[in-house]
Amino acid sequence: MIVDGFKFSGLSAGIKKDGQKDLGLIYSDASLSSAGVFTANKIKAAPVLIDMERIKKGRSRAVLVNSGNANACTGERGREDVIETSGMTAEELGIGADEVLVSSTGVIGRLLPVGKIKSSIPLLVSSLKRESLDDFAEAIMTTDSFPKTAFATKELEGGKITVAGIAKGAGMIAPDMATMLAFILTDADVGPELLNRCLKSAVDESFNSITVDGDMSTNDTVLALASGKSGVKITEKSESYLIFLDLMKDVMIKLAKMIVKDGEGATKLIEINVEGAISAEEAKKAALFIANSSLVKTAFYGEDANWGRIASALGGAGVEMSVDKLDIFFGDVQLVENGLYKGSEAEEKATEIMKHDEPAVTIDLKMGAGRAIVWTCDLTHDYIRINAEYRS
Amino acid sequence: MIVDGFKFSGLSAGIKKDGQKDLGLIYSDASLSSAGVFTANKIKAAPVLIDMERIKKGRSRAVLVNSGNANACTGERGREDVIETSGMTAEELGIGADEVLVSSTGVIGRLLPVGKIKSSIPLLVSSLKRESLDDFAEAIMTTDSFPKTAFATKELEGGKITVAGIAKGAGMIAPDMATMLAFILTDADVGPELLNRCLKSAVDESFNSITVDGDMSTNDTVLALASGKSGVKITEKSESYLIFLDLMKDVMIKLAKMIVKDGEGATKLIEINVEGAISAEEAKKAALFIANSSLVKTAFYGEDANWGRIASALGGAGVEMSVDKLDIFFGDVQLVENGLYKGSEAEEKATEIMKHDEPAVTIDLKMGAGRAIVWTCDLTHDYIRINAEYRS
Repeated sequence: MIVDGFKFSGLSAGIKKDGQKDLGLIYSDASLSSAGVFTANKIKAAPVLIDMERIKKGRSRAVLVNSGNANACTGERGREDVIETSGMTAEELGIGADEVLVSSTGVIGRLLPVGKIKSSIPLLVSSLKRESLDDFAEAIMTTDSFPKTAFATKELEGGKITVAGIAKGAGMIAPDMATMLAFILTDADVGPELLNRCLKSAVDESFNSITVDGDMSTNDTVLALASGKSGVKITEKSESYLIFLDLMKDVMIKLAKMIVKDGEGATKLIEINVEGAISAEEAKKAALFIANSSLVKTAFYGEDANWGRIASALGGAGVEMSVDKLDIFFGDVQLVENGLYKGSEAEEKATEIMKHDEPAVTIDLKMGAGRAIVWTCDLTHDYIRINAEYRS
Repeated sequence: MIVDGFKFSGLSAGIKKDGQKDLGLIYSDASLSSAGVFTANKIKAAPVLIDMERIKKGRSRAVLVNSGNANACTGERGREDVIETSGMTAEELGIGADEVLVSSTGVIGRLLPVGKIKSSIPLLVSSLKRESLDDFAEAIMTTDSFPKTAFATKELEGGKITVAGIAKGAGMIAPDMATMLAFILTDADVGPELLNRCLKSAVDESFNSITVDGDMSTNDTVLALASGKSGVKITEKSESYLIFLDLMKDVMIKLAKMIVKDGEGATKLIEINVEGAISAEEAKKAALFIANSSLVKTAFYGEDANWGRIASALGGAGVEMSVDKLDIFFGDVQLVENGLYKGSEAEEKATEIMKHDEPAVTIDLKMGAGRAIVWTCDLTHDYIRINAEYRS
């Protein structure tokens, strides 16, 4: 996977104990139009706070990312550590210190192993290659079981544009940016302001529409970087704008679904459709409430078409509804009509749907035109095993 | 356990498949001052809707409860079924139909087996005894592993008053009355209005301060019933009022903690104290957010003093806070001071606290005087096993 204008590297700096890759770099020899969306958590990691400042000018050249340590709850020292590591990276690259964006993911509350990172920076810089996107994708993994990359391309009048995405995140995934890092790269020529608008819109329908365990992290970051190397200018209110936005959404939804599929211990990617809510906001609220219910998630793990748990979670979501209008479908099998159970024959068919790897549930409230899709995963023995054993 | 003015019975009507007790009755030969608090779920089971009407006049004589079937999402037919079963009970008892309160708990969306219940009512009525409170407690269990009763008594000037409580509930426990039934009985002489006020206040500090999996059910009900048989009159603004309220809280907090301890698969009863919030509401919101975090709950299961997950959950709660003021204690061991980790020696001590059956965590935000206590349990392999296999 190549995106014009970008080089990548990834290596092991010894931050993780197991010798796996844990330090990655993205670099462009051209100035990058840059936009970012960051965690809504009140506790923000040091790299997030620094990115939030640096992103303001809408221009950058590089992104330094480490896994294995979140550099969160590390106070003033954590901040100084980011300035030191990103500063050294800038020096090696011969660019301005504030042209380096930074992300960290891993254990909270431990100081960044600055020495290990600094001694790896020269090799990290000298290894930069157009072809090394996969090394970078590997270097940002934590409990992920596979690297996550996606790609979309489209021929426009002025030339071909490409959007590539790299993400990580397994547990702690919830809307409003949970422990998840994503980097969206394009060769389109799009200014920072427009890029920012596209990014926010695409985040809403992708990373903010997934949940693994409802927790949101201190480090979540999505950065969009545009090199302009395709020469195709994206302008507001043009057809190219809509095409570019669609490419971004396509890549980001693919990545978001990969993150859910790789949710800690997950065996199923579950799609929750809510239709007929009084607004899109209420539809999303209801879908997320259902998607976060431990009882719903364990029912999927047990392959039990337990619509009672869905109805109960829905009733707890606090959205406008009337039980005597409620329809529930598993796939295209209707199991509840106007709040009433359709019987054992429908249930048998619904149970078949539950056995799919990617089952879908549709809830129609029949109150209005609001609709939303949310993706979640099942809650399994492996989730417990991973999260009761992680760390130390 | 005897409470003057109350008789009980409990038997197997064959609603549950395994022949365990599933039908219970409370009865008083005197008119009972009555108050109730019901689920906030928008989908309310038929018995809840009927109780909400019947409780309005503040007087009742009996409570009919079944387990094994929730009579929720059963439409008009569900309502008729309650009227039929409670009507027959009233007839057998020789009281008014609207003097019978009703509760159901179990699977959602299946019609109540009215025939089985009706054919058991004569025996249920003829078995009523002052001494049979434990039979009733057993009859209302679902996934509970033990019956839950509590008791408090106090000598006042006018005589001795007693408060007894019976509860059920294992999964689906969240504030705002999650699948939980509780019956609080007293021989104090207290009018419906005052009883209602005491009940609401005590519910806030007990059943609305616990969480097992964050879900709330369609059937949750807490009823308070006062026979007046002690002859001790409870009046507003009297010392007796405060004593009575304390007895209610004592009984209800005991029951609430039993419910958490018996949370599906739970191995630990965890106390989350939040202090120094800008208000009591914010303290409770923060405590509940932490208590509902799957990552926090699995960390307790893993006996890992993972304060980073607590901090991260706290930051996601949306309460006023500043990370550089944050203190976190495990038991009396301070692990975080002003947002910074105190080091491995403190962590070793905190890890010892995590091994307790009833560990406590205290979070001091140092923003104000708001405080709250919430109880939760760990998230374990057995939770998954129980909830992935429950039903069919």
